[in-house]
Amino acid sequence: MSFNTFGRVFRFTTWGESHGPALGAVVDGCPPGLGLSEADIQPFLDARRPGTSRFTTQRQEPDAVRILSGVFEGRTTGTPISLMIENVDQRSKDYGEVAKAYRPGHADYAYDAKYGFRDYRGGGRSSARETAARVAAGAIARLVIPEVTLIAYVCELGGDPIDPARFDAGEIGRNPFFCPDAQAAKRWEAKVDAARKSGSSLGAVVECVATGVPAGWGAPLYAKLDSELAAACMSINAVKGVEIGDGFAAARLSGETNADPMRPGADGAPEFLANHAGGIAGGISTGQPVVVRVAFKPTSSILTPVETITRQGEASEIVTKGRHDPCVGIRGTPVVEAMVALVLADQKLLHRAQCG
Amino acid sequence: MSFNTFGRVFRFTTWGESHGPALGAVVDGCPPGLGLSEADIQPFLDARRPGTSRFTTQRQEPDAVRILSGVFEGRTTGTPISLMIENVDQRSKDYGEVAKAYRPGHADYAYDAKYGFRDYRGGGRSSARETAARVAAGAIARLVIPEVTLIAYVCELGGDPIDPARFDAGEIGRNPFFCPDAQAAKRWEAKVDAARKSGSSLGAVVECVATGVPAGWGAPLYAKLDSELAAACMSINAVKGVEIGDGFAAARLSGETNADPMRPGADGAPEFLANHAGGIAGGISTGQPVVVRVAFKPTSSILTPVETITRQGEASEIVTKGRHDPCVGIRGTPVVEAMVALVLADQKLLHRAQCG
Amino acid sequence: MSFNTFGRVFRFTTWGESHGPALGAVVDGCPPGLGLSEADIQPFLDARRPGTSRFTTQRQEPDAVRILSGVFEGRTTGTPISLMIENVDQRSKDYGEVAKAYRPGHADYAYDAKYGFRDYRGGGRSSARETAARVAAGAIARLVIPEVTLIAYVCELGGDPIDPARFDAGEIGRNPFFCPDAQAAKRWEAKVDAARKSGSSLGAVVECVATGVPAGWGAPLYAKLDSELAAACMSINAVKGVEIGDGFAAARLSGETNADPMRPGADGAPEFLANHAGGIAGGISTGQPVVVRVAFKPTSSILTPVETITRQGEASEIVTKGRHDPCVGIRGTPVVEAMVALVLADQKLLHRAQCG
Amino acid sequence: MSFNTFGRVFRFTTWGESHGPALGAVVDGCPPGLGLSEADIQPFLDARRPGTSRFTTQRQEPDAVRILSGVFEGRTTGTPISLMIENVDQRSKDYGEVAKAYRPGHADYAYDAKYGFRDYRGGGRSSARETAARVAAGAIARLVIPEVTLIAYVCELGGDPIDPARFDAGEIGRNPFFCPDAQAAKRWEAKVDAARKSGSSLGAVVECVATGVPAGWGAPLYAKLDSELAAACMSINAVKGVEIGDGFAAARLSGETNADPMRPGADGAPEFLANHAGGIAGGISTGQPVVVRVAFKPTSSILTPVETITRQGEASEIVTKGRHDPCVGIRGTPVVEAMVALVLADQKLLHRAQCG
Repeated sequence: MSFNTFGRVFRFTTWGESHGPALGAVVDGCPPGLGLSEADIQPFLDARRPGTSRFTTQRQEPDAVRILSGVFEGRTTGTPISLMIENVDQRSKDYGEVAKAYRPGHADYAYDAKYGFRDYRGGGRSSARETAARVAAGAIARLVIPEVTLIAYVCELGGDPIDPARFDAGEIGRNPFFCPDAQAAKRWEAKVDAARKSGSSLGAVVECVATGVPAGWGAPLYAKLDSELAAACMSINAVKGVEIGDGFAAARLSGETNADPMRPGADGAPEFLANHAGGIAGGISTGQPVVVRVAFKPTSSILTPVETITRQGEASEIVTKGRHDPCVGIRGTPVVEAMVALVLADQKLLHRAQCG
Repeated sequence: MSFNTFGRVFRFTTWGESHGPALGAVVDGCPPGLGLSEADIQPFLDARRPGTSRFTTQRQEPDAVRILSGVFEGRTTGTPISLMIENVDQRSKDYGEVAKAYRPGHADYAYDAKYGFRDYRGGGRSSARETAARVAAGAIARLVIPEVTLIAYVCELGGDPIDPARFDAGEIGRNPFFCPDAQAAKRWEAKVDAARKSGSSLGAVVECVATGVPAGWGAPLYAKLDSELAAACMSINAVKGVEIGDGFAAARLSGETNADPMRPGADGAPEFLANHAGGIAGGISTGQPVVVRVAFKPTSSILTPVETITRQGEASEIVTKGRHDPCVGIRGTPVVEAMVALVLADQKLLHRAQCG
Repeated sequence: MSFNTFGRVFRFTTWGESHGPALGAVVDGCPPGLGLSEADIQPFLDARRPGTSRFTTQRQEPDAVRILSGVFEGRTTGTPISLMIENVDQRSKDYGEVAKAYRPGHADYAYDAKYGFRDYRGGGRSSARETAARVAAGAIARLVIPEVTLIAYVCELGGDPIDPARFDAGEIGRNPFFCPDAQAAKRWEAKVDAARKSGSSLGAVVECVATGVPAGWGAPLYAKLDSELAAACMSINAVKGVEIGDGFAAARLSGETNADPMRPGADGAPEFLANHAGGIAGGISTGQPVVVRVAFKPTSSILTPVETITRQGEASEIVTKGRHDPCVGIRGTPVVEAMVALVLADQKLLHRAQCG
Repeated sequence: MSFNTFGRVFRFTTWGESHGPALGAVVDGCPPGLGLSEADIQPFLDARRPGTSRFTTQRQEPDAVRILSGVFEGRTTGTPISLMIENVDQRSKDYGEVAKAYRPGHADYAYDAKYGFRDYRGGGRSSARETAARVAAGAIARLVIPEVTLIAYVCELGGDPIDPARFDAGEIGRNPFFCPDAQAAKRWEAKVDAARKSGSSLGAVVECVATGVPAGWGAPLYAKLDSELAAACMSINAVKGVEIGDGFAAARLSGETNADPMRPGADGAPEFLANHAGGIAGGISTGQPVVVRVAFKPTSSILTPVETITRQGEASEIVTKGRHDPCVGIRGTPVVEAMVALVLADQKLLHRAQCG
């Protein structure tokens, strides 16, 4: 089944394909009276935009967003906000080969198996271009949660992690990798260049930290804050794993090491002496920073030939020409941040619904 | 907000607390005409049941399920199936201390922050007893997907992984750890004993493999098969991470290594030469085994004293007496399996809805 | 598809059949901290209870409700509230004939067409016994909206309307018809007696008025307050029509007659000079009383023989013995009231979610 | 809360205001492989289009629809279909007065009460222009249910009903009132002219009949086919009542008169001797024509002055200039038809999900 809506009360629906005329999102359930114009959204789209360095796809898309509804005299009205981004740099002729054979690791075969056929141009609906719509919606979600500060960055690229001791938030915007460690960024430059030149691709791990989330957002069970974050992040193209706090590493700790001890804090709220939990216990925020980590596989579209079959089931080999990111995880960084914002906005409103 | 329903068309709602009179689930959207009696559900509850070895909590619960609706003359009618399990071995007096102070790593503080108070007896709604309801619902989900074979096991305990070369599915039911490697099971025995005796606890990683899922289940975006699996598994108590296929390891592979090449298979369907993707591409199943891996943190309720605060915000220290699993991941195994079954049943029906 | 859950954030799921061991509801999303015990629910069940006069079915059901979860020390915890009512007076042997042939006007044929078979005992899931679960859930909804006063009554029975000039709210509880007009109640006594004796049945119109709903609940479009009320009421057994305010009569008015003029009221809020709109404009409450009117068809189960077919498609004739209400609309009155309460509670929380 | 999405598996989300740049709908869950181009949608928009006779608003809108996604090489791909209609004939200057004072019967006051302010131009989101998006979405729904034939018509206008004996389906398209009775159409011409000239407005009743719906669509309870139809139709602007089959008239019948007797039909399916039930029993279709009747109140925007208050709460009087339909029920006819199509498409897919 096609489900292109995410969220429970603050919801968004995305539409559009890589090579269609446009793509967009409808944001529903937004509180009224928030100041909103295209200028609140565009910077986030610019951060995700392709073609800004040699380390991303060379497709040139201005990704200029238009607000078509839901805003009156500069403020949200409480009615649905329609956002549209026109596609301008499609080159469908690049995709002749993809129409005939399946790219291993890509959605091609699965789409054909499900729907009987597919829009093969640029991956159609499975293209990461869809994430522009999420980033646009996420920019609105941020307005709903002004108490929260979000930061996302690549913490590992091609198996090469940052050094936490060198973490510098100010560095993130200064290199093309959203990397908070200047030395790692240097190394990654060489890594990505090498992958690009050899027709290969790389994976990455993105970390997002949300500070300022008050204790109490979330739910005990199937709409747990961590469950929603996992769904949100796993829904991003190329993502294969999600962790909250220590994640898989927590499975290797003893109970007493993993505990986040509390002592009386300044303002009545507890002071936590650690944050193995990543700010969530029992599905509900604890007031500590919410920490999510997301694994992106290497881009499936590569110039190295891979064994495959044609739509007719015959043996073949495929090389994906087109224009592709050598590491989708890089541009996935603002997408993860957007999805975390969207989940938090929804959970804030849900909490208010039930608990006033 | 409290959301105790999971699923889109095949849905279940759970209710109940650790020390209430009973707990249960209502399964809605089940196809009609499936043979169903308590005997189809009980074995799965028995596998998850506490008190069966010294490696799990000593609480004695028969976990006998009753079907209260939705079945007529031994077959599902298509109307909601109400399942109830009575609690018989509550010992609320164990929880006096928990009422007064927060157990670090547990949901206590977050619940109070959200709701203003909480049912502290045995963790109330945040108790892993709730998972009995999921396992019962999962047993019905299995009837919806007879084409799928599910297997789940602990693949790492306290940081000690199984040896894939020693994998023996038949071994899983022969030790108290759902461990497919007889030698690892031996080692874990010592490990868990040690943790239990020292008042500590251990984490674990559970893997679930679903064979027989046809290509085409899932959705391109927010109801992606992997997104739904991530939400389902992250909603289980104590889970902090979810991976599909190679998961975080995929972020360290090159594009050509991570690709799952295809060649013509026996029956027209492709033969895949690898399964790094864990059976899902673009959110849709590929026909390969679906592989999910889930990280359980060590049990938060431990006998080792931990620094904490009282409900009044005063400094304190807590030791959690009660009866607890030294490693919740062990009994989490049938729960993961149940959640995967529930997601697959839902996705099968969703696929049928859209694609006939 | 079976959908047994109603509501968006304040939700309830019902289960159970006429002749199963029990029926119940799970109420989810309820705000925490509300005082709740069985005594808050039972009076509403008693009002709907069968067998209390000769004008209703003679089935004797105490309809004693048990709260199985979600309440701790007398207050709602914010987690799901499970309610159970045991069936005690089933007489399945009455239904042999119904198993073989379809009762015209009843759900029998439609169920078989949908599901392939059905639980024919007492109508199974399509029995009005399910409405006990709604009434129980509705009693909890009332606690969420203490600002609202609800009143429901039969305003027409067997085509004989009350005289608005004789409306006396105090009268409603003094006769077995929920009739606010003492003279009409007298006439209806004869009417229902006659129908009962001749093996016939009667329809009725129920009106529900909610006073105290503040302006602003509802939504502009597909979750309009009136749309939700229509869905809620039309989901009640035997209902064939729903009106808001003047309803169908509004279609016969001119624009200027139908307008509800406003003038400045005492406290800044407008004073309305009429309420043709029934308290809802553009899907949102106006602060005036919300008025809903619901048409119940005559009971389908009658002693008068009707032409029908058997399950095998052969011509037959059917007389429905069992025990049935000669006019389901009467006992439908507390059900309408409950459904209105459930919608209003949900809309209150939704409004709070979006607008704070 | 703003909920601009309707449907469960076949869903659509609408957006846009009367005087924004455009409005639209995103249709999600549509089966793949259906032939679809703008030409499949435009005729239905043309039927609803304003300015086509002197009996509707004089606003001139071509209502040209563009498909922006979800279609590839002329067929639906199974991914979301984005539809956009540009607004071309806004005249916002007409609305100065509406900005300052509330139009009685209109959503103005309720919106301000809910959201704190509103887009007053042409009613903003509460404008009937939104229904263009529904009609466009409805055109796609029709493709999902080729087995169903839909017909909708005005059966009463200003209290003047058609004569069923003169019913001629061919007549519906031949007059500006969607009237199936040529003589009634003549009378209505005079009626609407008179209302228009005197600055008044009229209500109407629209009937929609769906033939070809197989037995078995729908659900026993909260997603009953009749409940969904009621929600769908009550969500249309200006609607105040919905009936299924005999509706309120059924409340005046005896049980034996209201029964729809069955006898063996030609092909194994029963032949029904009447259709008081309007094709639905127990929430599930019976195979008979599904009959829905919808009451539209008279247009609230009238030239006759009405007593009101300003936004500041001062006494005032208002005359609504702008351009308005003298009877919104007329152009509501294709909207009712679209909503019925949308519900049936959703229910067809839901039925397929559960029952195969």
